[in-house]
Amino acid sequence: MKTLKQLGEFNFINAIAKGCLKHKSVIKGIGDDAAVVKLEKNLFLLFTADMLIEDVHFKRNQPPQSIGRKAVACSLSDIAAMGGVPRYALISVAFPKNLKASIARGIYRGMQKMAKKFGLSIIGGDTNSADKIIIDVSICGEAVGKKFVLRSGARKGDLIFVTGRLGGSRKGGHLDFSPRLKEARFLASRYPVHAMIDITDGLISDLRHIIKMSKKGAVVWQECVPVAPDAKTIEDAYYTGEDFELLFTVPESSADDLKERWPFKKVKLTCIGEITAAGIGLRIKDEKGKLKKPRGCGYRHF
Amino acid sequence: MKTLKQLGEFNFINAIAKGCLKHKSVIKGIGDDAAVVKLEKNLFLLFTADMLIEDVHFKRNQPPQSIGRKAVACSLSDIAAMGGVPRYALISVAFPKNLKASIARGIYRGMQKMAKKFGLSIIGGDTNSADKIIIDVSICGEAVGKKFVLRSGARKGDLIFVTGRLGGSRKGGHLDFSPRLKEARFLASRYPVHAMIDITDGLISDLRHIIKMSKKGAVVWQECVPVAPDAKTIEDAYYTGEDFELLFTVPESSADDLKERWPFKKVKLTCIGEITAAGIGLRIKDEKGKLKKPRGCGYRHF
Repeated sequence: MKTLKQLGEFNFINAIAKGCLKHKSVIKGIGDDAAVVKLEKNLFLLFTADMLIEDVHFKRNQPPQSIGRKAVACSLSDIAAMGGVPRYALISVAFPKNLKASIARGIYRGMQKMAKKFGLSIIGGDTNSADKIIIDVSICGEAVGKKFVLRSGARKGDLIFVTGRLGGSRKGGHLDFSPRLKEARFLASRYPVHAMIDITDGLISDLRHIIKMSKKGAVVWQECVPVAPDAKTIEDAYYTGEDFELLFTVPESSADDLKERWPFKKVKLTCIGEITAAGIGLRIKDEKGKLKKPRGCGYRHF
Repeated sequence: MKTLKQLGEFNFINAIAKGCLKHKSVIKGIGDDAAVVKLEKNLFLLFTADMLIEDVHFKRNQPPQSIGRKAVACSLSDIAAMGGVPRYALISVAFPKNLKASIARGIYRGMQKMAKKFGLSIIGGDTNSADKIIIDVSICGEAVGKKFVLRSGARKGDLIFVTGRLGGSRKGGHLDFSPRLKEARFLASRYPVHAMIDITDGLISDLRHIIKMSKKGAVVWQECVPVAPDAKTIEDAYYTGEDFELLFTVPESSADDLKERWPFKKVKLTCIGEITAAGIGLRIKDEKGKLKKPRGCGYRHF
């Protein structure tokens, strides 16, 4: 009798995805950063949910507002990764009965601030009691102008870009990151972005999601990868989860224009590699020009 | 320094509802069975979420499929209470790492079966690890023909109806109830239903929600209340949560027609009282015709 740990998180998700009814309006169901639903001819909605659990994603003694901010920011980051605009949120929480009311209020204040910043209306949810703090944020967003970006559209010859610097999330970055909504809207509305994802499992693991779903390969140029000042080694940049930066591919012909017109002065934009034929798999080109195989995988819940 | 228990669940919800941004498309935010959003002229969406936690809402040794069924049915019941049609679901779960994979699969099978039965597409969600099983189901539904029923529309002179029999949920009813979607659609599409709610906190507590939000009073006729065979006393029918039956009000002029045309042979429909002026508050008329005040409140999480 297998346990979930033995089965593995992705195997489990794949197994459950198969058994789900899929109405014809569902353009993309389980398996991307958000689901895509075509409600009317010109109305595409995006749906995503992220659950945060005390002692897994945060500690009770961390600043309550930061916990709340993060809970909303994680789901916002998924909407960003689709190139969408966030609209409505449902927030389900469980709090210990003996929790100080000020902590619960602080968490909500953080959620409300983050929501307001990005035009998100919190319209409902559920409240419960439990031994640990649990927060599940589900967001409904819109793909304005019918434009949304899946993980599965990368093409051979595309260049791979990343926003920000990677590997710094271990040291404080976890709670106070800013979802890249404006950056993603800029990209999706002006450039032929073929594939996009937000980095939550780690650069290598999330790039693997893109090439697997696009049925392509990829080479990452080690010397180009922007390493966060807090990161100890390049390995942190490769394998640390929760950077919440955008990882995306555009055709080479758009790359120079994009680099030139990138308007976000405080957010670094870096070309870190290229999409190849599927046969190559995922490889890192090191400083000596040698192709090496990356380590197995990023973060898994079980 | 207050704890959440001292503050109270409804006080907490009211406090957080105040701080939330409300886009002009939000017709009804926090405070009803589901939120209502007007996306386009003829397109109204409903949003609701329900979180179930091991040892609060179910036990690990209960049949996994029943746990899954219940998780989805709770949110479906909220869509029913609005008179809506369920469309899309996001399901976030947390499972212990050492949980038997067969239990997790069973839970999903139960969720999928319940979803299919009511035309609901499960399109995404999140998976996590935790010490206890946690399931949060958020559903997006549609108010077909712009028709939806809030808690706040009850009018003086309305008759109060309830589906099914009450107070049986303590004994097995908790897990295997059927959300009253068809019944609610029938009601919302054919009758001037002024207010509706699904009974989750208990008849008295949920009727209190209706009269509070409608700024009215109500009298419940004790001898008319349909008591479940499993219930021990009338008190169970009044105060037991999780019946998941519909509680609604219609004008007296529609009542006879409704009783006559009610097409659901297996689901009892009973008139149990009337809406009055606000001054009366909430009263129970006992078998001797005496008005008495009901006990304080139904189920609270904290």
